[in-house]
Amino acid sequence: MIRQELQRKIDTRTKPLGSLGKLEELALKIGIIQNSSTPELRKPAILTFAADHGIVDEGVSAYSKEVTWQMVMNFVQGGAGINVFTRQHGIHLRVIDAGVDYDFPEGTNVENHKLARGTQNMMHAPAMSIELCQKAIETGAQCVQEEFNRGCNVIGFGEMGIGNTSSASLLLHKIAGIPLRDCVGPGTGLKADGMERKCRILSQVAEKYDPKTPIETLATFGGLEIAMICGGVIEARRLNMTILADGFIATSGFLAAYNMQPDVLDNVIYCHSSNEPGHRHMLEYMKADPILHLDLRLGEGTGVAVAYPILESAVNFLNQMASFDEAEVCDEQIDRKHEAGI
Amino acid sequence: MIRQELQRKIDTRTKPLGSLGKLEELALKIGIIQNSSTPELRKPAILTFAADHGIVDEGVSAYSKEVTWQMVMNFVQGGAGINVFTRQHGIHLRVIDAGVDYDFPEGTNVENHKLARGTQNMMHAPAMSIELCQKAIETGAQCVQEEFNRGCNVIGFGEMGIGNTSSASLLLHKIAGIPLRDCVGPGTGLKADGMERKCRILSQVAEKYDPKTPIETLATFGGLEIAMICGGVIEARRLNMTILADGFIATSGFLAAYNMQPDVLDNVIYCHSSNEPGHRHMLEYMKADPILHLDLRLGEGTGVAVAYPILESAVNFLNQMASFDEAEVCDEQIDRKHEAGI
Repeated sequence: MIRQELQRKIDTRTKPLGSLGKLEELALKIGIIQNSSTPELRKPAILTFAADHGIVDEGVSAYSKEVTWQMVMNFVQGGAGINVFTRQHGIHLRVIDAGVDYDFPEGTNVENHKLARGTQNMMHAPAMSIELCQKAIETGAQCVQEEFNRGCNVIGFGEMGIGNTSSASLLLHKIAGIPLRDCVGPGTGLKADGMERKCRILSQVAEKYDPKTPIETLATFGGLEIAMICGGVIEARRLNMTILADGFIATSGFLAAYNMQPDVLDNVIYCHSSNEPGHRHMLEYMKADPILHLDLRLGEGTGVAVAYPILESAVNFLNQMASFDEAEVCDEQIDRKHEAGI
Repeated sequence: MIRQELQRKIDTRTKPLGSLGKLEELALKIGIIQNSSTPELRKPAILTFAADHGIVDEGVSAYSKEVTWQMVMNFVQGGAGINVFTRQHGIHLRVIDAGVDYDFPEGTNVENHKLARGTQNMMHAPAMSIELCQKAIETGAQCVQEEFNRGCNVIGFGEMGIGNTSSASLLLHKIAGIPLRDCVGPGTGLKADGMERKCRILSQVAEKYDPKTPIETLATFGGLEIAMICGGVIEARRLNMTILADGFIATSGFLAAYNMQPDVLDNVIYCHSSNEPGHRHMLEYMKADPILHLDLRLGEGTGVAVAYPILESAVNFLNQMASFDEAEVCDEQIDRKHEAGI
């Protein structure tokens, strides 16, 4: 019902049929989610979860682990990419410590949901216990519920965590069954040598474990920030919010959520296609058609923030454009008349 | 000099090298245009030129000619796509009658630069005389100068004119030497029959004339709105503004300008890749790498308006992100240390 009503509304705006392309698809999707032909995006928020990763000890990242907490400090001081883009679009940004291996000074504006000082090194043990992973999922859900209670109906997820492309690659490999080599990329900037090493390490990790359930898979290979995103996505779906996916790592949290509950994707909009090679495979697996193709690979939620005005454009054209009737513009296409034999 | 300074600034922001992808290229381009490492986008404007086309008498469009003036009325009443998106982003919109075959009522908020009541039917005569075309170029230049005098340094161009994909196709064919069939598309929505007819008509027109100079080419196959865009682009380049290209028809005005003065492209940013098939060839010919790929094909300047926040994001990250030093984030990449043997 609502789909037909929306499609009719889209088709009677003063423009050639289909001429707003993907903006029309976005308007349709958001309208269907909200079951409304006048959908609204209210109090947009991005939750950026940060955590450390034990696997970094194996030298899988171009940056050292300290960069995680240093970048979190940068977030709360307003100097990072995600700060710039959320400010630009009036998006509420929350910076959440999911498990950073650092004690932030008193008064630092980081939300403390630290469940551990990073994950275990997967070379030696699963990243998280099932119990810890479950706790992270619940924490992510709780954060989303707080936003919902503020009146937010559109929520994106970002992440910061040196080493977390390793988790995202392993999750993609195990969940989607894609060859590991296609799932591994340079992350923050590995050169050929480093890539070789990262592939070797991750291949050893992949062989070491054979988790049977979605939660076990996430616990074994994930990260605390990824598990919180997973929980956030599931909760946002329960609350029927519009859910915005960022790049490779954040989307791996969506993938884990999809693995637990496939219908979450009904509410998901993919904001961009990352330059990290595994993201393309991940998006294909989830049948995603992302909005932007800007070769971003910064994470933090930046792809969501940069794409957000496009979502607003989709909703705005639906709500604000005149219809052919209202504008007294003739919408009889000549060749339709020809077809009808007029 | 400025290129190196900008690149250094881009590379020292708190993000992995190159991780803002095309936003980095945009920041570099705008910085080079403005010869500044702190470029600014000031008082953005879109000039939307409207005109009619004699070739419509041959049945090359899915819509009837009246839709040109009806849509112009829609623009000034605020109900069209371009109104929605320029309002969203605070872009100043000017609606300019370049040659619509209609007398707008007194008090209508359309700028009157009507130079003729549309072009000649190219089946029987060149679209414009050289003199008329020259006048249109000057008018476009004058409109741009007015914006410049208001303090605007970033300007986009849009168009409205039933039948004007025919002009754009012929200009692309003649200027770039691309087979006519690859230059012709469905425009506002021709079906197979209509497309066949349009190809046949345009092929006859193409064979009829063999213009020798860029201005003769534009006069023969162009439109009054396209010629005004061409003049606007050349003037905006002279004034060293950042110049924003929209879809197939507007870009044909850029193509005509490029044909007269190739260095105009130094100041041009391509906002999107249209779904009208000829646009892809046009963009390739001009070595363009457009920002958005949203399958838009509405014209009016809508692609410029929808892409504008992405340009702002590029400038904002350059001006607002902290450097590694400022944020006290360690930017020593481990594998660079490895490479250096540390």
